[in-house]
Amino acid sequence: MHVLVLGAGQLARMMSLAGAPLNIHISAFDVVSGQMIHPLTQEVQGHGLENAIQQADVITAEFEHIPHDVLHQCEQSGKLLPGAQAIKTGGDRRLEKALLDEAGVKNAKYFVIKTRDDFDSAIRHVGIPMVLKSALGGYDGKGQWRLKSTTDADAIWPEMQQCIEASDNQAIVAEEFVPFDREVSLVGARGKDGQWVVYPLSENIHTDGVLSLSTSIDAQMLQQQGKTMFEAVANTLNYVGVLALEFFDVQGQLLVNEIAPRVHNSGHWTQQGADTCQFENHLRAVCGLPLGSTKLIRPTCMVNILGEDTLPSEILATEGCHIHWYGKEKRSGRKMGHINVSADYYAELERIICSLADILPADAFPAVHQFASQHK
Amino acid sequence: MHVLVLGAGQLARMMSLAGAPLNIHISAFDVVSGQMIHPLTQEVQGHGLENAIQQADVITAEFEHIPHDVLHQCEQSGKLLPGAQAIKTGGDRRLEKALLDEAGVKNAKYFVIKTRDDFDSAIRHVGIPMVLKSALGGYDGKGQWRLKSTTDADAIWPEMQQCIEASDNQAIVAEEFVPFDREVSLVGARGKDGQWVVYPLSENIHTDGVLSLSTSIDAQMLQQQGKTMFEAVANTLNYVGVLALEFFDVQGQLLVNEIAPRVHNSGHWTQQGADTCQFENHLRAVCGLPLGSTKLIRPTCMVNILGEDTLPSEILATEGCHIHWYGKEKRSGRKMGHINVSADYYAELERIICSLADILPADAFPAVHQFASQHK
Repeated sequence: MHVLVLGAGQLARMMSLAGAPLNIHISAFDVVSGQMIHPLTQEVQGHGLENAIQQADVITAEFEHIPHDVLHQCEQSGKLLPGAQAIKTGGDRRLEKALLDEAGVKNAKYFVIKTRDDFDSAIRHVGIPMVLKSALGGYDGKGQWRLKSTTDADAIWPEMQQCIEASDNQAIVAEEFVPFDREVSLVGARGKDGQWVVYPLSENIHTDGVLSLSTSIDAQMLQQQGKTMFEAVANTLNYVGVLALEFFDVQGQLLVNEIAPRVHNSGHWTQQGADTCQFENHLRAVCGLPLGSTKLIRPTCMVNILGEDTLPSEILATEGCHIHWYGKEKRSGRKMGHINVSADYYAELERIICSLADILPADAFPAVHQFASQHK
Repeated sequence: MHVLVLGAGQLARMMSLAGAPLNIHISAFDVVSGQMIHPLTQEVQGHGLENAIQQADVITAEFEHIPHDVLHQCEQSGKLLPGAQAIKTGGDRRLEKALLDEAGVKNAKYFVIKTRDDFDSAIRHVGIPMVLKSALGGYDGKGQWRLKSTTDADAIWPEMQQCIEASDNQAIVAEEFVPFDREVSLVGARGKDGQWVVYPLSENIHTDGVLSLSTSIDAQMLQQQGKTMFEAVANTLNYVGVLALEFFDVQGQLLVNEIAPRVHNSGHWTQQGADTCQFENHLRAVCGLPLGSTKLIRPTCMVNILGEDTLPSEILATEGCHIHWYGKEKRSGRKMGHINVSADYYAELERIICSLADILPADAFPAVHQFASQHK
């Protein structure tokens, strides 16, 4: 089985590692260079989308901001899973919010802004404080604003207008500010036959808008809410593959914040923590194989490695710690890899994460140090 | 880090998969073709041993029957781990038995046979019944004889003689027949600094001389004996890397049967069952990184897939079952892959293995069916 992944980053790389034992071969398609490359060796395997499509049995994606002409060409081959609509929805905040409404899952009130008049309507409809997000292309905290008082609207509008005018189909989505206690996410997989499974929820900590820690949690009531919403969204999209839902947890009530139509950073803990990892389950789903068990094997916390290309070797000597480098060139703030930390019990997991604060530098791993200071 | 593996089979392949997350790149050197290839993609990366040695930071091996000139050239580069002597010892039954004596570990009485006179001396020294094994090149049950009565000596001698004369340095090692209850093995790793770790013992079932099932076991008294012998053998060889010891269990007393100076088929269960798998620990050892925890995460049984290139998809749907294909062309009896079966408890593991007998065909998986008939 030959799976073509649109996008050639770490998610394609980890799919490649998860696919090899199943004799599933992964090629990555770099939408910028138009090259087909092996995601592990970086060997160039071919040129041009048409050629890449022809060689593939199945086509999938590792990110949602894919040029629409590429998506359509893939969809026409009948090999693209999940479908173009699901991928586009993940890449357009307007479509995403409309989907959540259609699926009947709780999400924050919103209003789409194209003009200054829309902005005023948004303030009336959504209320203050509000969060403003570009509809297209925003991720990891970029293209976002907050409005705490109407008097600040004039001050931020020029930047918003510039963003809207910078591309043809751009808009800004105004959203009610949700006073959430924490962010949690649910990763699950849905097969071609409509069967679906979800992993245990994970709790996510962001630092400067980028995910820094993601830990499996044991929370039955929340898990049940998350499952119901996963089913609604996945079925509405007739989704095939791994799908991630990010939620706000507001005093035990989940609201969907966003969806990701792909394997997700908040699911990396499943490599050590779950019976079948998210990368294998995504491949099983799109290849029409039975889904694997998503059972928690060990409580696990994923620590993102941002902008660093070396770690103290004591990390490897720490029981339950596994490093996953992405083979990338070092760049400030870049996701270079992650550490999965596992233990038999949650209390033990906390103890190990606290001990990592003695090993990992505070400037590169502020969330670990914050965790340690809160739990010591 | 670039590690060259002498041999281009499934062990190099699985090292490649285990090394990628640590940014350790594996090339395999095919000693027959003289080509350097990527063990996953089979891409040819270079030609000739000298070139391969130059490109490598570290050289290791996935099998012990390596031409001595190749071993010596690698050893001279100062990059070979474990050393040539350890690898040669694993490939020569005479050296192996001498090592076990030197290390002071219990093993079956033996005598080396080159001539018919030696054979008679062996019968006097070792006694009847005896097992006869070619010193070089015998594995998976090939090149072995049994002598149950002195009157049969004349009948088997011509075949033994032919074996001895077929190559320069060949001999046959006569060994006392050990009435063992079962075969168990211990896989461990020793680092450059002399630190060492071992995995839990596994119990091995062979079918027609080929390993068919290997299951982690919880046996403290045996584990202690195994550890002591591992330490003795590994230190005697000043070993670096993963080393496997195969034992006869004779009423709770372990005798070393043989050693394998490499990752071993009876350690494949560690991919799902241990905190750090044997492939990662081998790479950590030879690369001078700290060894990873060998703690049992889940009781796990490995089922070899012999001569089959497809499996019923229900296997993937069974909780705790993970398939590892080797990407090889189908050949009768060939090791094509393995299934790791994991569970939270041993009783649950037994139940799952029994349920596999309803899914896997009896002719291809006789050991699974035998297990099921004994445990139902």
